[in-house]
Amino acid sequence: MRAKQEVGTRERIVRATSRLMQRHGYEGTGLKDISREAQATLGSVYHFFPGGKVELAVEAIGHGDHEFAGLLRTVLEREDDPAAAMTACARELAAGMRDSDWMDGCPVTTAALESARRFPPVREAAERAFENWHGIVRDKLVRSGFPDDVAGDLAHTVVSTFEGAEMTAQIMRSTTPLDVAGTHLARLVDSYR
Amino acid sequence: MRAKQEVGTRERIVRATSRLMQRHGYEGTGLKDISREAQATLGSVYHFFPGGKVELAVEAIGHGDHEFAGLLRTVLEREDDPAAAMTACARELAAGMRDSDWMDGCPVTTAALESARRFPPVREAAERAFENWHGIVRDKLVRSGFPDDVAGDLAHTVVSTFEGAEMTAQIMRSTTPLDVAGTHLARLVDSYR
Repeated sequence: MRAKQEVGTRERIVRATSRLMQRHGYEGTGLKDISREAQATLGSVYHFFPGGKVELAVEAIGHGDHEFAGLLRTVLEREDDPAAAMTACARELAAGMRDSDWMDGCPVTTAALESARRFPPVREAAERAFENWHGIVRDKLVRSGFPDDVAGDLAHTVVSTFEGAEMTAQIMRSTTPLDVAGTHLARLVDSYR
Repeated sequence: MRAKQEVGTRERIVRATSRLMQRHGYEGTGLKDISREAQATLGSVYHFFPGGKVELAVEAIGHGDHEFAGLLRTVLEREDDPAAAMTACARELAAGMRDSDWMDGCPVTTAALESARRFPPVREAAERAFENWHGIVRDKLVRSGFPDDVAGDLAHTVVSTFEGAEMTAQIMRSTTPLDVAGTHLARLVDSYR
């Protein structure tokens, strides 16, 4: 019973960190904010994460990585056609942004951009996330018959473009950058068939 | 003489803020850091920017907007062919990232992402920057003969993709995402001719 409860608390702390850093970045998120948001004592935050904020950021980025990977996998599996999968992904991201009132952008980049240089483990966690997403998109394209090199290159641009379009949509408070990105990525994918 | 010197100090403070926020974000940049980096007294920082850090961030984002707009205009004017202009832009951005040892990413997004939600003037400054860059790319495409709506949509994806690819390149410490983005944007532009 106790072990189960401890797992619950740890996970709540990771999710709270991810949510807060997604909105306020690394520097804008304090351990007290995390403890409050997770409904956990500050003592338990230190207990589970003796490495402090850097360790929490690494875990939170891992959580964001996992979340976005799940969305990518679900949409790419649902849509057989890889071009249609691009517009479907864009639609999902646009709906998520609008539904969160333009608050919840990419959980990885907001935390990583400003802290990656000072804290190598944070940059490495973000790099693992990008590599994971890249692999998911590349594998879908390879399964759809694209040669490995074409699929690998396309996967870079798919990840970069969704990242950039989500950020632009958040700043502009408009889904247009994501809607247009979906259409153009579909067209780009199609142009290699 | 005095007026001239004051202009110099104000500009030094804006540039220092831009450079620091580009690397450490909004929250990671303190007024004391700005004063030190600008070689200006804390008193002069308050004198020129009575609105404090929010006002400084807005000015710094305006400075970053102007800098990236200058790079875009220079490259787009140098390359007559709009597809070739895409790969040339990507090359410039990649060189800048590598030369700064992966430190200097987009001066607008790093400052804006984590603070846009809490400080509306910061978000608005970032929105003006995106609109400015979008207009520069759209105008180049219209001058190259693309219909207004096609040019407007393409300009969204060009800005989003460069943003995302620059961020990914910074995290991965590799120019590959930018190199590939340039090739794909050129192909996309070409596909509408």
